[in-house]
Parts: sequence; structure tokens; C-alpha cells
Amino acid sequence: MRITGLVTHDIRFPTSLELDGSDAMNPDPDYSAAYVVVRTDAPDGLEGHGFAFTIGRGNDVQTAAIRTLEPYLVGRDLEATLDDLGGIWKLMVHDSQLRWLGPEKGVMHMAVSAVVNALWDLKAKRAGKPVWELLADLTPEELVDLVDFRYLTDALTPDEALDILRKAEPGRAARKKELQAAGYPGYTTTPGWLGYDDAKLRKLCREAVEAGFTQIKLKVGADLDDDLRRMRIAREVVGADIRIAIDANQRWDVGPAIDWVRALAVFDPWWVEEPTSPDDVLGHATIARAIAPVRVATGEHVQNRVVFKQLLQSGALSYLQLDAARVAGVNENVAILLLAAKFGVPVCPHAGGVGLCELVQHLSMFDFVAVSGSMTDRVIEYVDHLHEHFVDPVRVERGRYLAPSSPGFSATMKPGSLSRYAYPDGPVWTELRRAV
Amino acid sequence: MRITGLVTHDIRFPTSLELDGSDAMNPDPDYSAAYVVVRTDAPDGLEGHGFAFTIGRGNDVQTAAIRTLEPYLVGRDLEATLDDLGGIWKLMVHDSQLRWLGPEKGVMHMAVSAVVNALWDLKAKRAGKPVWELLADLTPEELVDLVDFRYLTDALTPDEALDILRKAEPGRAARKKELQAAGYPGYTTTPGWLGYDDAKLRKLCREAVEAGFTQIKLKVGADLDDDLRRMRIAREVVGADIRIAIDANQRWDVGPAIDWVRALAVFDPWWVEEPTSPDDVLGHATIARAIAPVRVATGEHVQNRVVFKQLLQSGALSYLQLDAARVAGVNENVAILLLAAKFGVPVCPHAGGVGLCELVQHLSMFDFVAVSGSMTDRVIEYVDHLHEHFVDPVRVERGRYLAPSSPGFSATMKPGSLSRYAYPDGPVWTELRRAV
Repeated sequence: MRITGLVTHDIRFPTSLELDGSDAMNPDPDYSAAYVVVRTDAPDGLEGHGFAFTIGRGNDVQTAAIRTLEPYLVGRDLEATLDDLGGIWKLMVHDSQLRWLGPEKGVMHMAVSAVVNALWDLKAKRAGKPVWELLADLTPEELVDLVDFRYLTDALTPDEALDILRKAEPGRAARKKELQAAGYPGYTTTPGWLGYDDAKLRKLCREAVEAGFTQIKLKVGADLDDDLRRMRIAREVVGADIRIAIDANQRWDVGPAIDWVRALAVFDPWWVEEPTSPDDVLGHATIARAIAPVRVATGEHVQNRVVFKQLLQSGALSYLQLDAARVAGVNENVAILLLAAKFGVPVCPHAGGVGLCELVQHLSMFDFVAVSGSMTDRVIEYVDHLHEHFVDPVRVERGRYLAPSSPGFSATMKPGSLSRYAYPDGPVWTELRRAV
Repeated sequence: MRITGLVTHDIRFPTSLELDGSDAMNPDPDYSAAYVVVRTDAPDGLEGHGFAFTIGRGNDVQTAAIRTLEPYLVGRDLEATLDDLGGIWKLMVHDSQLRWLGPEKGVMHMAVSAVVNALWDLKAKRAGKPVWELLADLTPEELVDLVDFRYLTDALTPDEALDILRKAEPGRAARKKELQAAGYPGYTTTPGWLGYDDAKLRKLCREAVEAGFTQIKLKVGADLDDDLRRMRIAREVVGADIRIAIDANQRWDVGPAIDWVRALAVFDPWWVEEPTSPDDVLGHATIARAIAPVRVATGEHVQNRVVFKQLLQSGALSYLQLDAARVAGVNENVAILLLAAKFGVPVCPHAGGVGLCELVQHLSMFDFVAVSGSMTDRVIEYVDHLHEHFVDPVRVERGRYLAPSSPGFSATMKPGSLSRYAYPDGPVWTELRRAV
């Protein structure tokens, strides 16, 4: 049995027509997926689905980058590949020519992410398990084998990783049951987009609390007076016990970040997210020291495990927001979960976009069962948007993600969505152009 | 007069057939250019030429990324665009959708680099000056206007940049004369590729000294015993007065980097280059403290000014090796030169590849005339390779780069080279495929 093909789709949703998803840096995103399907000649007919999330322009560049990885896959023995996903990860990430385009960052790294996640989807479908459970059933040794420790060993060695995983092993079965019974806590970003007026903000905050969420998030950073007014409204509506995170989407330099957060501190923000450039480790650390007890969270644009390592080493982060499809997929996120566990920092994944909630739930649930062993101060971002395009969408009830039970990574988009939203020639886009 | 088009070429040289360019991380590079030509309807018929350098696979992704920038250029007023290159830089770098693919790193950032440098080439050709001189003739205010200070102000403010430039202003005329008379010092990487045997290493070291170079560079990091033997040979041949830099091309983790450099310290290496991941600011700082008095140099894979800022803030760098085509072109390199001047760190650009020597000479010469005002401990990398493909190749005599006098950025490749090395359908590549 062999891998026979890798098919890409440029899928874009015209979300810029609404103001959903608007923030201080992203006024008009068209949520998009550079989508990949891994095909095999196995009689089961199963496919691996994965994607890189983008916000519109450049999604064609992202799909082109995914296609450069085809020579690594087509013709390979299927079972040998799926049995050594750590091996194929290293081959693709360290390709001596492709790595010049990064290394390990941006378009090429996100391309590896899409392919690696598609292989995990396929492996889990073949095993008849959701990805979180497949991962949580691996031995500590098998998990460590998934990780590339290059550039990490000054912070985390393979032996230390093994220790973390072995310590969590005895409680796995009990935590799996707990997870399947009670789900995993989420928080909602739905109320907080910058484009919404005060009445809508007020209404959505109320609905979030009624829906059982114990944390919400507000976008900030465009105008301080607006932020003060919106924070006051949100705090009034949700009361003192609901956590309100704020998210600046990289809007500030270091000094202005400190001043702005201090101005909002009166409303007790739980964390400030992306206060400055995601590349600025030292800047984040400076901000974190200056705004305590308000906490710093970041990660959705952190390019790889080497930058996360430094954010942890420097004490810049109180919450680590991994992204399922920016770093190079499951394998790199296992490394990041282990780093976070080593430094004792809770992981609260970035989600939203299209399909990101579907992916990250598996990583947090694996973390709970087999790595950190804890849900304390851990929440998965939730936005109620575009889930209808997925075959196995997230289920969120009373503010908690229910554990997926279908085999795979919940990454498979419905065939109708793949054809309707194909860019530029799918019917949704041809009709939009006709309407202009 | 308007910009009418942006034409891209996927140009690849089959350098992997030789061992030129082999190092511990790049065993088989095919030096390549994602090449762009900016066309206008001006009666002068001048074009702007620029490129991103890659090492083969993925060069098609890089050209696709360049094409996403076309909507920013085509139809724009030519003179207004060239009069405000700081403005167009910000538009392209901060495109709200494209920045998701970075932000400001990897494929998309290198694409901006190619386009920005092509615009500088065009501006300089229209002004009848080489780029170094065009830049060095701008006022301090005009230079500061080129720079985006976003994420830099905790290290360098516009006012501080103005002070640096104004302090250098009185000496500009004298330094321009000195530069035109005596050139700018270079160093050579030609002897040191890993693929060369000892006899060739010995011969090339001797020739480098005879050619007037006062610094050479050796690739290291694959095998310590080999490195010890090669360093001994090189030191024997060149004597105690010639500086020998070593370059590990990101081969090591932090701990091994320290051990390896200490083992080689007996041969008095001048600097160690890229000892670990280019993303690891804290790692570089740790290494720098541990291996002193051996110095750390890095930059060819440093993705943007934000990472350079931190390398300087943390004391990680003794030499800053900017690259002309990885960060977003001239404008970002002006920012980087100003940061280096603020921190008192000499800039020794990365070059080699294809066309990089041609580009960086302009940046170092501008730095000498108008920013740092110094050549002390400053050298431009030189590799005698592929210059024959350029209309206005570098001229290096007695170990020194002569100041270019032709208008433009020295970036224009000969039409014959653009057609012969076109990938995959140019005659060089079709013939190679026939030979296999």
C-alpha cells in the first residue's frame, strides 16, 4: 500500500463581507484554507485531510508551497510512513533546499503543517480513533520519538520529556473518562470583534454568560477610548466572576503596550494577547514584567518551537496559545506541549478562523490526558463560525468542548463546501464577481 | 507615467553538480533567483530588476509570492511611487491579508524584498546613480522616512535615528571620495566549503592571501575532527595575521555550539557564524557569553528587523550580517544599519549565492558614507561565483570591493542568463534532464 497522491484546494470564504473577524490588525479577512488531501491505494479508501489557515490573499501561494512537498509523499509505503511520522516530519522540515525559504517559519512551515496534520488524520482514521485518543494511547517513548529536539535541548531534553510523560501515565485512564464525561472548557471570542456596536457587544456578552462560558475575549488596540468604553460595558454585563481576556493582535510597540494595558487594568483583564510583534521575545518579557498582575498570552503567530522555547525561558508568557496549523503540525505541537509542561505554563490554544477549533481540541485533550494532566486555567478558544462546513464539527455545550469520538482529526471539509468555495472559480466567487 | 507590469522569472543554476556552496546544512544547493522585473510606460524604457535568492526547490513558490504583490504596483503613478518608497513598503509589508503568511518573515517577506529592491534599482537608474550613492545623497530626514519604526521604538526612535544620520553628515563628502579611491574591504569564503579536500583547501587559502584578502572563512560543524584538521591547515597556510572566521550554518544546539567553538578556539577563530537556529536570540546570547573572546556573527537567515533588534539588545552579536534579499529590501536594511549604529555593532553583510555580492556592496558603502562612517572591522563577504551572469558585476581587487559607478542596484541579470537558466524549461535544464 502506497501514498498515491496529494491534491490541493484553494478554499476561501468571503467573510470580509461581514465584520466577523475584524480586529485592530485584520480589518477584512476572508477566512481561507490551503487544503490538502492525501490519497492512497489502500482498499479502505481512506484519505488524510489537512489545511493551513490563511485570511485570503496569498492562499494560492500557500497551496503552491504544499505542492512542493509532494515528492516526499507520493510512492512512499503507507504503513511505514504512518508508523514513523517523526521521520517524515524531519525529512520535510529539514529539506536542505526548502528550508532556505524559512527555515521553519511562514509559508513553508505552514505547508508542512497541513501535510503533517493530514497524515495524522489518515493515521487516526485507519486506527478508528480521534487524534486526541490516538496520541493519548501512545507510550511515552513513542511520543518522544515524534519530537525533533533540535534547538530545544538547552530547555528540554528527550529524557526530561520522557519524565514528564511517564509521570502523567498512571492517571491517563481516569482522565480520559473525565474528559469523555465532562468535556474541556472553552472560552468565546464571539462578543468581542471590533466591528460590532455597543448594543451588539452587550447582547453577545450576555448570551455568552447564558451559554455557560466563564471567559470571554475582547479585541482591543485600535482606539483607547473605544476600548475603555467597551471594557466597561463588557464588565458591567458579565459581572466580576467572568474572565475577560483582551487581544491586541500585535498592534503596539513595547512602550505603548504597557501604557495601554495599564489604562485598561481597572477592568481586570485576565490576559492581554499579542501585545506586540510575535517575534519580539524580549519585548513580551518586558511587557509581562511591567503589566503584572495582568498576564501575557501569545502564540497564534509564533512561528515555531524555538520561539516558544524562548518565550518560556524569558518568563514572557503566562498562557501559551499554540496554533494547530502554523507550526509544523501535531509533531511540533507535541514538542510545544512538553515545553509548556516543563515550564509549568498552561496551554490555551488559538482557534477560530476556519477549522482551527476542530483541530486544536484534539491537542488540548491529549495534553490533559497524557502531558500536563490538568485543565486548571486551561481553555480552548471558541468562535461559532464556519463549523457547518465540516463533516465532524466541534460540539460545544455549556461552555465546554465535548470530546470528539469520530476517527480522525475533525479536519475533513464537506465536499460541497470544497466545491462551492473554491477560489477563484467556485460558484460563490463567480457569483460575487458577477454581483460587483 | 505609470508602472505597467511585473514580470517574474524562475531562474536556477545547477550548482549542486559541483561542491561549491556545500556546508553542514546545505549539501546540495542549486543557487536560484526568484527574479522580478518592474516595467513602466516611461519613455526612458528603464526597468527595475530585483530578486529573492533561494537554493533551488521552492523557487517557484517564491516567484508566486512575488506575483501576489502585483496589485500594489500595476497602474500606480511612477514618480509618486519612487518618491515615497517608505510608503509602498508599508503598504506591501502590512497588507492585512498577506501578513498572515508571515508576518514579516519567510517567503512573503522575501517577496517584498525582491519588489522593493527592484523599485530601488529603477529609482537609481532614473537618477543616474548607483544605489549606494543615491542613498548617501538623501538627507537624514529623507532616510528616516524610508524606515518603518513599528516594533523598534523600545530600541531606536526616529529622533535617535536622525541624530545618528546628522552626526555622520559632515563627513559624507570626504568618505565618498575615500570609498571611490580605495574601495571597501572584502573577505572570501571561497577556500572553505566542506566539500573540498585538504589539498584544495590549502591551495585556495594560499591564493586568498595572495589575492590581498585579510580575512577568510571556513565552513564547520559536520565533524569536529575534520574541523580541527582543516582549521590547523588554514592557520598554517595563512599565518597569524589573517583572520579566519568559521561558519556553522545553524548546525548546533546551544550546548554543543559552546563545546565545539571552545575546541576550535586554539586556532583563534575571528568569529563563529550561525552557531545555532537563527530564531534563537537567547541561545545566541548564551553562546556569545560562553565563547568570548571568540565573537558571534549572524544574520543571513534573520527574518526581520525585530529579531535583529533583540540580537543587539541582548548582546548576542559582535558582527551583524545583514542580507540584501531576506528582510524586506533596502528600506528594512536602512533600519537595520541604524540599529547596528545605535548599538555600535559593525555590519559585515552576508553575500555569495547568486547576486548577493552585487546587492550588499551598495548597503555597506552607504553605511560607510552616511551612517556608521567607519570601515573598521567591517568586511563584505565575497565568493567568486556566478558574477558573469550580471550586466554590472562586482569588481574586487586586492581584497577590496570597488565602488560601483553604473546607475542602479547592480541587480540586472543578462538576458541570455535569464533565458538559459529558466526553470524548468530553459535549455540548461532541458539538457540536464536529457542527460539523466
